[in-house]
Amino acid sequence: MLYSLEFRVRDYECDLQGIVNNANYQHYYEHTRHEFLIENNISFAALHEQQIDFVVARVEMSYKYPLRSGDSFVSELDFRQEGIKYVFIQKIYRLPDRKLCNIGRFDCVCLDHGRLKKCELLDDFIRKITTEK
Amino acid sequence: MLYSLEFRVRDYECDLQGIVNNANYQHYYEHTRHEFLIENNISFAALHEQQIDFVVARVEMSYKYPLRSGDSFVSELDFRQEGIKYVFIQKIYRLPDRKLCNIGRFDCVCLDHGRLKKCELLDDFIRKITTEK
Amino acid sequence: MLYSLEFRVRDYECDLQGIVNNANYQHYYEHTRHEFLIENNISFAALHEQQIDFVVARVEMSYKYPLRSGDSFVSELDFRQEGIKYVFIQKIYRLPDRKLCNIGRFDCVCLDHGRLKKCELLDDFIRKITTEK
Amino acid sequence: MLYSLEFRVRDYECDLQGIVNNANYQHYYEHTRHEFLIENNISFAALHEQQIDFVVARVEMSYKYPLRSGDSFVSELDFRQEGIKYVFIQKIYRLPDRKLCNIGRFDCVCLDHGRLKKCELLDDFIRKITTEK
Repeated sequence: MLYSLEFRVRDYECDLQGIVNNANYQHYYEHTRHEFLIENNISFAALHEQQIDFVVARVEMSYKYPLRSGDSFVSELDFRQEGIKYVFIQKIYRLPDRKLCNIGRFDCVCLDHGRLKKCELLDDFIRKITTEK
Repeated sequence: MLYSLEFRVRDYECDLQGIVNNANYQHYYEHTRHEFLIENNISFAALHEQQIDFVVARVEMSYKYPLRSGDSFVSELDFRQEGIKYVFIQKIYRLPDRKLCNIGRFDCVCLDHGRLKKCELLDDFIRKITTEK
Repeated sequence: MLYSLEFRVRDYECDLQGIVNNANYQHYYEHTRHEFLIENNISFAALHEQQIDFVVARVEMSYKYPLRSGDSFVSELDFRQEGIKYVFIQKIYRLPDRKLCNIGRFDCVCLDHGRLKKCELLDDFIRKITTEK
Repeated sequence: MLYSLEFRVRDYECDLQGIVNNANYQHYYEHTRHEFLIENNISFAALHEQQIDFVVARVEMSYKYPLRSGDSFVSELDFRQEGIKYVFIQKIYRLPDRKLCNIGRFDCVCLDHGRLKKCELLDDFIRKITTEK
């Protein structure tokens, strides 16, 4: 596992079933990806200003167990390259018991001025983390 | 196609890339499913009060083309049963040009007092719409 | 009243108390203001691209009666100028009984390349609607 | 100041102007209030299950300086009783420079089975913190 980030459920993220609304898992995963990139000096917002947009092309999420008001959890991330795609495998575990709550897979691509392109910044980064392993 | 609902992008749904944030598609799809059920006299909120929760077990979404500030769009829904699962195939098309923006598949299940169960209300409803076809 | 827009509560906007979460009223009001401006050919997003940002400086909202799952409502807007401020008086009424749910006041200002400034586009528009009255 | 909580802006909280959307300040403040109450053994969710709802009756917020992607900030809270109202004075400062970004005032009331009522749990708690001062 390459990166992890701890969160706490916020009550406004829960819906009338008393559980975290499904769409918020996507928010948790996105924030985890962006923090992971920031920590490696890749800013989603700064890239956008250079008209390089890092976008999600495909999402898969399995809802295993619901998070509730008051829960803490950890969001874990793994990352690999598949051709032009950057694939993030992400999981959410409730804390402290590490009950698996959600598994996600996010296929991302890089748009340079709106055109699909390999992103040098990300490719350099991937070479770096692959060598370090 | 069983049901469709028109929407208009709200500016707060767009993120700093100027496009609708990924998680909001899940919101659009959820609202479409719930309105579809309501129109067929099945209320998500009323079911919850009887401790019957209709929950998403698995999501797949493909992001084909981004929605932007000012866009209108239609969210279309198809629905079928696969054993204990209720499968919604949903698509979002920008209007008026019907550019395909997103394709989603939502596998839902029914929890009765927390236990996985077939939902009679939904099963009756499925029999009804299948017969009508 | 200058403008009104109808909405329907979306279930994901409700929180674990079963009522629309407080922050969503701000979303409803913002969407109403932006649609009002668009209808008068003033685009919040297009202004931003010219580095003119229309921003909220101060908000007041009174929560009179909660909206719930399944409710429809109308968001009404009035608008006046007070020096450098553009003041929106906004109200939300449940439909069909017009039960008053929320009253809001939004003081907005115009930032041109980050500096506080009168917005000619808005001033022209205000002159127009004042003359028409 | 009674309580403070640190946050980090999440990119999905920013809108197309590149700044945190106005409604999210209300989310930050709500989460701060609920964490403050939880730390003092008062759970918003648990109260709701006893049909005691702690609700916001009135909000005032002044937007002083916008938060942006990548910003960290601290949300500070003060609290007093005014008759039947529980008044929270809340501020948000960007970190590390403590630039004041937002000032909020939230007047809350307690609904017991839907009726306005003083909340014993909160009153005991207020006596406790007042005595400690």
